[in-house]
Amino acid sequence: MIYADNAATTKVSKTALAAMLPCFEQVYGNPSSLYAFGQEAKELLEDARARIARCLNADPKEITFTSGGSEADNQALRTAAALGAKKGKKHIISTAFEHHAILHTLDALKKEGFEVTLLDVHENGLVTAQQVAEAIREDTALVTVMFANNEIGTIQPIAEIGAVCREKGVLFHTDAVQPAGHLPIDVRAQNIDMLSISGHKFHGPKGIGVLYAKKGIRLENLIYGGAQERNKRAGTENLPAIAGMAAALEESLAHLDETTAKLIRQRDMLIKGLSEISHSVLNGDAEHRLPSNVNFCFEAIEGESLLLLLDDKGICASSGSACTSGSLDPSHVLLAIGRPHEVAHGSLRLSLGEDITDDEVRYIIDAVKEVVDYLRNMSPVWRSLNEGRQQFVLP
Amino acid sequence: MIYADNAATTKVSKTALAAMLPCFEQVYGNPSSLYAFGQEAKELLEDARARIARCLNADPKEITFTSGGSEADNQALRTAAALGAKKGKKHIISTAFEHHAILHTLDALKKEGFEVTLLDVHENGLVTAQQVAEAIREDTALVTVMFANNEIGTIQPIAEIGAVCREKGVLFHTDAVQPAGHLPIDVRAQNIDMLSISGHKFHGPKGIGVLYAKKGIRLENLIYGGAQERNKRAGTENLPAIAGMAAALEESLAHLDETTAKLIRQRDMLIKGLSEISHSVLNGDAEHRLPSNVNFCFEAIEGESLLLLLDDKGICASSGSACTSGSLDPSHVLLAIGRPHEVAHGSLRLSLGEDITDDEVRYIIDAVKEVVDYLRNMSPVWRSLNEGRQQFVLP
Repeated sequence: MIYADNAATTKVSKTALAAMLPCFEQVYGNPSSLYAFGQEAKELLEDARARIARCLNADPKEITFTSGGSEADNQALRTAAALGAKKGKKHIISTAFEHHAILHTLDALKKEGFEVTLLDVHENGLVTAQQVAEAIREDTALVTVMFANNEIGTIQPIAEIGAVCREKGVLFHTDAVQPAGHLPIDVRAQNIDMLSISGHKFHGPKGIGVLYAKKGIRLENLIYGGAQERNKRAGTENLPAIAGMAAALEESLAHLDETTAKLIRQRDMLIKGLSEISHSVLNGDAEHRLPSNVNFCFEAIEGESLLLLLDDKGICASSGSACTSGSLDPSHVLLAIGRPHEVAHGSLRLSLGEDITDDEVRYIIDAVKEVVDYLRNMSPVWRSLNEGRQQFVLP
Repeated sequence: MIYADNAATTKVSKTALAAMLPCFEQVYGNPSSLYAFGQEAKELLEDARARIARCLNADPKEITFTSGGSEADNQALRTAAALGAKKGKKHIISTAFEHHAILHTLDALKKEGFEVTLLDVHENGLVTAQQVAEAIREDTALVTVMFANNEIGTIQPIAEIGAVCREKGVLFHTDAVQPAGHLPIDVRAQNIDMLSISGHKFHGPKGIGVLYAKKGIRLENLIYGGAQERNKRAGTENLPAIAGMAAALEESLAHLDETTAKLIRQRDMLIKGLSEISHSVLNGDAEHRLPSNVNFCFEAIEGESLLLLLDDKGICASSGSACTSGSLDPSHVLLAIGRPHEVAHGSLRLSLGEDITDDEVRYIIDAVKEVVDYLRNMSPVWRSLNEGRQQFVLP
């Protein structure tokens, strides 16, 4: 099996698992307990917090553990909304291609009286700092723009957007679930006020994430209860997962340069190979792009059939986000970058893991070509296009 | 070390860990993915859901996975509040000795215009169905009463309270974080509409819980985002933890009768032994009590010193909930059952694990007696009480 869906989730690394195992059966005490056995757990917890803070160039006090990226996104937006509302600021700026953890929370905030501006995304999948600057108003409470897109892999000019927000005194949050562990993140240098990450996207465990919030930002509780996480996130601390996430993040960053170089080379092999398929288009910018991400649209192809036939050939891939895979609607990200419905339906996302080989990349290229050919040969739409009864959308 | 703080958290069982391990490195696919590798994860997920449902006599569709008991409590209350508000019902009934996941969520709801009635708790730590019946009004949206108290272990008449709520058409939620895996739970027979449980209280992993909601109750999202959990709880499903929790719950219930009989015998040994300490009192009802729970107040004792000296003797215990152990305030539970501040400060909770031996129980009794003596001998308050310059509160 070739697992090429690392943007959906990743295998837990041996290093991460080794950090977790002692916390299940040995250091299983409640970190909030007074006795030494609980304090031992507390020490591991605070050690993990400090190490994660270091990975982001943050202060440990700025790190709050959550159950994952979605929770972190929800809490960040709720926090900014509450802080804004206190000052009569009820306008939020975001983009049309955010993850649903952002978009659906914004929908909820709209029902509570917030006004939301979703910036248009250019065809290459990028927004500019200038767009953000022009959208900021007197009553803007928050700008939230994702660091790198989970479907098409485009990397936004985060530092510049952050600088614009700083200058105008507006809070800036970024969903960094996809790039964490895969791109360098420096919350100070990149002018980030709040940032969300998720352990299972970089070979840490599922069910754990981080909300970074710059000192001085008073978090709004999403989950009320015990006094954990400085009263800002109730629930017994999930130490095994926290320890695993810290180990995985450090491990990913330790090898970042070599992994990145290797993945970019393989990603570009894949892009070159798949570009040879007629009436296809690469989604997202070729340059400002996650090293692991490839995303194509193929005309006259049904994405789901493509995935199932690739699965038969032992390739795990997706058409977009796993979070919405039950839905029959085309990806909102592909629509946001201007792909028409019928083209957006024929999408394929391949997200490479660190251990993929060149042979496997070549195998993927051949398999996709073969499957696209097969599906098109069976397709009445394809026949209609070729016989000139319908117009091609893609060149 | 004798770990007598199983109400705070428990060691992950070998069975639970064995269920989790394959999900980290082998079946690590995203359950929302289309390919067979993701569907394999989906099958494990739905198998765990069905097994947990069976343990509670619920339907799998009534089970929603959360990040733990606190989240489940928060979501249950938010759901009932939203449903109530739609019908103009903004009154909630609870008790004064709930977990803070309930009490602090109720505080938040109060700020949003809800009225909360907290029922008085009798000195034995019990509320009655009659109290609930008398408090229900035309505009009551929810009754939430904990199944068994986490500090003093009292088991409430849940089925009767549920019957009263059914009769009056009011939603009934119960926080069953402490009893799950330790007492039989049957949501149908006990007339429960919503119920919260947490994996790590019965030898499952931390960071995972369940919100049971009776068919027909439309959950309100606490975390917005992807379409997981029928759109009601966003975030990639935490399959390892879910599989571990299901295995742990089944394992606990499989041996429930024998474990219960053994623990009740040992608990009562402990109660008898500690009752010999002068000016002490058992907190909570002697009969309607979790098999694992012992909770005493000792006059003229500072709970924290007691715990630290017991820790020196290798005994892990607590003064109450671990969730609030950073606080200097006496337990709100002990105040709710009428203990004066100065007595509530001298509390000790021992919560036994299934593998504790009679010798260990005897060791605990001797150790507590010795430590209480030692602390009292050093205490100016104790001297003052004995010399009649102050009045004893406890007999």
